[in-house]
Amino acid sequence: MRLAILHGPNLNRLGERDPAKYGVATLDDITRDVDATAARLDVTALHFQSNHEGALTEWVQDRQPAIDGYVVNPAGLASYGYAWLDALFDTGRPFAVVHISQWHAHDGKDRTDVFAAHAAVYLAGAGWRGYSLALDALVHRLREP
Amino acid sequence: MRLAILHGPNLNRLGERDPAKYGVATLDDITRDVDATAARLDVTALHFQSNHEGALTEWVQDRQPAIDGYVVNPAGLASYGYAWLDALFDTGRPFAVVHISQWHAHDGKDRTDVFAAHAAVYLAGAGWRGYSLALDALVHRLREP
Amino acid sequence: MRLAILHGPNLNRLGERDPAKYGVATLDDITRDVDATAARLDVTALHFQSNHEGALTEWVQDRQPAIDGYVVNPAGLASYGYAWLDALFDTGRPFAVVHISQWHAHDGKDRTDVFAAHAAVYLAGAGWRGYSLALDALVHRLREP
Amino acid sequence: MRLAILHGPNLNRLGERDPAKYGVATLDDITRDVDATAARLDVTALHFQSNHEGALTEWVQDRQPAIDGYVVNPAGLASYGYAWLDALFDTGRPFAVVHISQWHAHDGKDRTDVFAAHAAVYLAGAGWRGYSLALDALVHRLREP
Amino acid sequence: MRLAILHGPNLNRLGERDPAKYGVATLDDITRDVDATAARLDVTALHFQSNHEGALTEWVQDRQPAIDGYVVNPAGLASYGYAWLDALFDTGRPFAVVHISQWHAHDGKDRTDVFAAHAAVYLAGAGWRGYSLALDALVHRLREP
Amino acid sequence: MRLAILHGPNLNRLGERDPAKYGVATLDDITRDVDATAARLDVTALHFQSNHEGALTEWVQDRQPAIDGYVVNPAGLASYGYAWLDALFDTGRPFAVVHISQWHAHDGKDRTDVFAAHAAVYLAGAGWRGYSLALDALVHRLREP
Amino acid sequence: MRLAILHGPNLNRLGERDPAKYGVATLDDITRDVDATAARLDVTALHFQSNHEGALTEWVQDRQPAIDGYVVNPAGLASYGYAWLDALFDTGRPFAVVHISQWHAHDGKDRTDVFAAHAAVYLAGAGWRGYSLALDALVHRLREP
Amino acid sequence: MRLAILHGPNLNRLGERDPAKYGVATLDDITRDVDATAARLDVTALHFQSNHEGALTEWVQDRQPAIDGYVVNPAGLASYGYAWLDALFDTGRPFAVVHISQWHAHDGKDRTDVFAAHAAVYLAGAGWRGYSLALDALVHRLREP
Amino acid sequence: MRLAILHGPNLNRLGERDPAKYGVATLDDITRDVDATAARLDVTALHFQSNHEGALTEWVQDRQPAIDGYVVNPAGLASYGYAWLDALFDTGRPFAVVHISQWHAHDGKDRTDVFAAHAAVYLAGAGWRGYSLALDALVHRLREP
Amino acid sequence: MRLAILHGPNLNRLGERDPAKYGVATLDDITRDVDATAARLDVTALHFQSNHEGALTEWVQDRQPAIDGYVVNPAGLASYGYAWLDALFDTGRPFAVVHISQWHAHDGKDRTDVFAAHAAVYLAGAGWRGYSLALDALVHRLREP
Amino acid sequence: MRLAILHGPNLNRLGERDPAKYGVATLDDITRDVDATAARLDVTALHFQSNHEGALTEWVQDRQPAIDGYVVNPAGLASYGYAWLDALFDTGRPFAVVHISQWHAHDGKDRTDVFAAHAAVYLAGAGWRGYSLALDALVHRLREP
Amino acid sequence: MRLAILHGPNLNRLGERDPAKYGVATLDDITRDVDATAARLDVTALHFQSNHEGALTEWVQDRQPAIDGYVVNPAGLASYGYAWLDALFDTGRPFAVVHISQWHAHDGKDRTDVFAAHAAVYLAGAGWRGYSLALDALVHRLREP
Repeated sequence: MRLAILHGPNLNRLGERDPAKYGVATLDDITRDVDATAARLDVTALHFQSNHEGALTEWVQDRQPAIDGYVVNPAGLASYGYAWLDALFDTGRPFAVVHISQWHAHDGKDRTDVFAAHAAVYLAGAGWRGYSLALDALVHRLREP
Repeated sequence: MRLAILHGPNLNRLGERDPAKYGVATLDDITRDVDATAARLDVTALHFQSNHEGALTEWVQDRQPAIDGYVVNPAGLASYGYAWLDALFDTGRPFAVVHISQWHAHDGKDRTDVFAAHAAVYLAGAGWRGYSLALDALVHRLREP
Repeated sequence: MRLAILHGPNLNRLGERDPAKYGVATLDDITRDVDATAARLDVTALHFQSNHEGALTEWVQDRQPAIDGYVVNPAGLASYGYAWLDALFDTGRPFAVVHISQWHAHDGKDRTDVFAAHAAVYLAGAGWRGYSLALDALVHRLREP
Repeated sequence: MRLAILHGPNLNRLGERDPAKYGVATLDDITRDVDATAARLDVTALHFQSNHEGALTEWVQDRQPAIDGYVVNPAGLASYGYAWLDALFDTGRPFAVVHISQWHAHDGKDRTDVFAAHAAVYLAGAGWRGYSLALDALVHRLREP
Repeated sequence: MRLAILHGPNLNRLGERDPAKYGVATLDDITRDVDATAARLDVTALHFQSNHEGALTEWVQDRQPAIDGYVVNPAGLASYGYAWLDALFDTGRPFAVVHISQWHAHDGKDRTDVFAAHAAVYLAGAGWRGYSLALDALVHRLREP
Repeated sequence: MRLAILHGPNLNRLGERDPAKYGVATLDDITRDVDATAARLDVTALHFQSNHEGALTEWVQDRQPAIDGYVVNPAGLASYGYAWLDALFDTGRPFAVVHISQWHAHDGKDRTDVFAAHAAVYLAGAGWRGYSLALDALVHRLREP
Repeated sequence: MRLAILHGPNLNRLGERDPAKYGVATLDDITRDVDATAARLDVTALHFQSNHEGALTEWVQDRQPAIDGYVVNPAGLASYGYAWLDALFDTGRPFAVVHISQWHAHDGKDRTDVFAAHAAVYLAGAGWRGYSLALDALVHRLREP
Repeated sequence: MRLAILHGPNLNRLGERDPAKYGVATLDDITRDVDATAARLDVTALHFQSNHEGALTEWVQDRQPAIDGYVVNPAGLASYGYAWLDALFDTGRPFAVVHISQWHAHDGKDRTDVFAAHAAVYLAGAGWRGYSLALDALVHRLREP
Repeated sequence: MRLAILHGPNLNRLGERDPAKYGVATLDDITRDVDATAARLDVTALHFQSNHEGALTEWVQDRQPAIDGYVVNPAGLASYGYAWLDALFDTGRPFAVVHISQWHAHDGKDRTDVFAAHAAVYLAGAGWRGYSLALDALVHRLREP
Repeated sequence: MRLAILHGPNLNRLGERDPAKYGVATLDDITRDVDATAARLDVTALHFQSNHEGALTEWVQDRQPAIDGYVVNPAGLASYGYAWLDALFDTGRPFAVVHISQWHAHDGKDRTDVFAAHAAVYLAGAGWRGYSLALDALVHRLREP
Repeated sequence: MRLAILHGPNLNRLGERDPAKYGVATLDDITRDVDATAARLDVTALHFQSNHEGALTEWVQDRQPAIDGYVVNPAGLASYGYAWLDALFDTGRPFAVVHISQWHAHDGKDRTDVFAAHAAVYLAGAGWRGYSLALDALVHRLREP
Repeated sequence: MRLAILHGPNLNRLGERDPAKYGVATLDDITRDVDATAARLDVTALHFQSNHEGALTEWVQDRQPAIDGYVVNPAGLASYGYAWLDALFDTGRPFAVVHISQWHAHDGKDRTDVFAAHAAVYLAGAGWRGYSLALDALVHRLREP
């Protein structure tokens, strides 16, 4: 089973962004943590980050048949990334949404997360561990539908 | 460290409610799964379910000093349980919100979850495993603030 | 066939509440009228009133398998009684909503009846006879689906 | 006592419209059922259907002094039939609104029923028997104001 | 100069409708008053009332080239009579809207008057004399553009 | 019978303001026209203009017992002149609102006229003659209540 | 295959209405153009225009079994013609909506087209040729569902 | 004269709740202060607190004839306690609403106080003394209606 | 300690305004009552009323350093008196808002009180005694912050 | 005459996306069909698809003087592609919007198509043939303005 | 060229108002800075501040022909100063709006600036220098229209 | 001190876009003007334009430590460029927003500028000189915080 871990704009700078909100873990730290979780769950994780919605959209298109599910942090694209969302939707595979901080208490007050209504799993506020927890939840959903 | 696992109205009937939406696990199944997770995390879990908002409110009041955090499934009280929410808020301790199904895709289309803006962790759609995953996330937040 | 007649908060005081709005019939008068209608329709009616949403919720849970349908006057819980509504919904049985006065002309101007969208039959403004008329409609729906 | 039974647009095709929503009874079936109920209640029922709002308006104007109350299914005019509604309102007599299916669960999600706030009795979801039940409720309201 | 005085649904019953709101003048009384005003202003007034929007629409279409302006009481069509309004708009001639009672204090609280934004003159609350006053205003606007 | 003609801010500049919207008549022209109408109606007209809401408010307070009704052009105060409106309301006498241009087609698209719901007569779009027509309507309402 | 071309209120005056918005083609021109397209597509076109919603509703009812699809220009009924829309909906056949000018840029800014959500094809802004293009699209949808 | 002082959910913990918002006075402190005020005003005060809306509702029902007015702090029930509010409303006696902190500056930004529109006196922000001040105001209203 | 009692537009006419809503006390009666309360509380009260927002604004500016707190009845300025509110806000001193009648049940249904969110104390419905009660509450807040 | 056919994100995958919604035609099929239509109309069609809004924006900028009109399927950019829309708008040339499925019945329920108000032609629901029909409509508009 | 610099309510207290929001410059400081800028630009600046909207309105009326443009800080009148705005609008000359702090980040969150849509230049957040910068921008717009 | 001047989509075509709205200056003209202003202010200006939000986001990320502030014209990204905005926000440095035309009078009527609430300086309507004026304001804010 192969799962993709997708990071939206500015997440390449995790660890340098406001630590009170986003924590001190870098994207490499998260990748290591997710890979360990993937090994424990006996699945393969693929990682991709981009600041270009078009690139995120095409990554999903190109690898579509090979991926069983997605863990997605839409970041700044949460409110309007319909193109990326359409690409995810077209795969017919479930995806989990992860927000490092608690979206409902911060950005979610002012804007909608358009990915939310279509996500199989929604997790916000668990910090850098959120990716692994969401991966865990998604894999169990895939195995016990 | 002691964590409370609180279940709102109708969750005593898990396993009998619509399985396509809520799964087949019963509250006892969830309790066992959470206790195992608690043991792994080296914390103690207390469990309580009620169909009365007043009883949920008073449970929080009475055990307040002894609890370090809460995992809460507000269920039918999600949209208006301000009394219970106030009691949680008054403890000054963080709480995680868990929804078994994906709230944003079902009930969340029509009503607001008033617990969301105050939750430290928000997890929806992970099924019965959601309680353990939320407990895990909350304990890590408490240990690495 | 067994039907439950459920009365929400303050309906124990029917006959004493504003008679211009609610009429002079008491809950006992209504019970007698409904029982006569039930006899005519050859069904059994069970009656329950409570001022506690939790008690109404649990009454539905506890008697669930034995009841074929519900005639419900949500009264003061009409706008936020999701816990009770969830319990009704979980039974998988149809329910009729009854308001003694015409909800759309009074309270319904200012607040929503959250039971309305899920009711099989909706009747407002027929006074104390509304319960019997709704019972009649519900029984016919159950017999000629 | 004389009561008018008024049917709005497309109800002349009852029995041919979507049976899952509107049932298989025709307008003649309903007329027979209502006449039987009227006989039991010792009142006279007059029946009229039109697809023209102007014709419905004028029917009410022309027969105004002779009618004690109205049972009205506004159908497609529910959201904007102010001219017909004004004619009913001008009679100074009470009217009941009947919807065959449960308006709040179908059309009522998207549009307002402008007749609702002025109706003495409001009944939705009781199928073809709704006319007789509404007639019963209205006659009792007229006899025991 | 020829002006049309157009009356919407139910205005054929003026004098019989609620006198506290609409006064005791009949349509004939108004016609006489308007004709006197027209004579004083040296113009010709044509009168038409219908309860059918289609008939009002076609009256405007058919007499279009011969009419220099319109005094319109949309009555129950005020909130949705776009077909009639389109016909008036297509004439390219100005029209005045008249409401016998003060629309903003009664119906206008709950619904929009879609004729208002396109009217050259808008007069409400002047009772049966409103027609003559609006005719006066409209004729002066036509003579001193 | 004594009627007050009250003009809000900037109306002292009528004749100099945008003539396409407000016409070429000055406040003196209007005063002469209104006085002629008052003479014809056998009433006395008092005139007052101010750019200060406080002054308009106090003018109403000070002359209150001596005035039988008001013709008011709220101008720039239409959307928020509650203090002036309260003073008019406290007199217990009816008032007519006049707008020189058609408010609903211009300013009324963007802002509410808070005087509208309390006015006995409402007239917009009749140009400088609007004052005399509103005076006429108001005097007739006072004489034939 | 038989298709109906239905025209709402005021469209009998095409060619005389504002040519900047509606063009110079008359209803006869359109009928000829549609008939040519129908011949090319090897289908039969029936044409009907009315200024009465009731007449449009009944035309649909009466010819229902014989028609495979509809091309409808709701014109002034676009925002509230639910009775006509219900009749179309009851046929169970697809219909295309045509607006001669671009509805979204003109009327659609201020009001909703209630036909839009139920239309199989929606075309606005193509002028008089819009009918033929919509017929073409509809016929292809019927042939290659 | 007998007045009831009613406290909603979580107010049993006054003195322990956030002192910056709710002050350091306990419910006993408030009871003593209110009793002293009641003695000065020569009335009797009855006190009741509950975390159960049902219990608050029934307390009002049971003591209804003996109570002349109510001082109510709805607390967490402010936004949805219609059942309790209905019970108060049914007594036909006036009630004052008290909020210890200034509701409009805190919770009132996000939610409505449904008790407000029906309260005879509304006082927020006066801290623990608010109960006595509201009692004073209510008693004077009862004595000088 | 010096407190200012500020009255907005039309309050100079208290006692003459609608007594059913505002009572029979005049501004002089209120001044005497407040002065007695001030003496009991050992503070000095300054009184000012104006119908001009500018005058109220400047009164606050000019006496700013000498005043410890304000009791304000914004009256007709409640919904838009931002200039006066800014002046109060700039003093950095707390103010209480007083409405003689219950604002939430009357004007507050239709318009917002922009002073509410910034007031330290908010009191409505206590009649002429409201000023003294608000003064009492404000002085206690100043002495026991 | 040269026309551009522009396809937004994910349309490179037509034929593989949900066929119930988007049909089985691929982008190549559409290109061939459009080219045939262009030949029939004696115009040249240029085709471009991208998943990057920036690339679509620059394509329009770079080829601007050479293009007489555009047929645009904004796809996932429909709700927020203002940059692309600005580029189209800056060309001063008309464009047609095409949606393969009926936007108003699907996505259009939840989000706005910001291209709609500026489009010369708007066509939804005609499937893969929509491009050719829109091209036809646009070319005729260009030739008979 | 003559430009007017107009200051709304409370700006006479600049330098004393909250310095974190408004800075330490006084109105005299700003006047000197603007005069220096005016000299550099070879224009004359006239200065006026008032706490009375009526006075600001009349200042504009009285000096109208002599002024080529306006730099306006509406301050507390920003949300409702339509009378002053109308006076500015009537001059037919352009005006710039200046806010010392960044309106969109503070007051603009809660209320609208009704001057914004009509301003030629809009500048917020530049502190006391904002007046000179806006004057510079306005003068250049006047010279290079 | 180093300041970045950032231009969003389509601004590379300034001078060619609608000159009535955007003026005739090209991006090179603006760059020269800004550089002259920068020299006068003794700071360095860096310039960047892109039609790709991703490229704008990454430019900010990559040069982050070297830049003291930003002058940003978001152009077509104003309403949804959260990714770019997040990158600016993450730098912890202030930025000024510049619109060449007056946003509030044009686009701002229909859509929100999401950059506005976070900007330190906001300037619209000053044409090509706006960049230099905003730079001036921003540099002074940085030097006199």
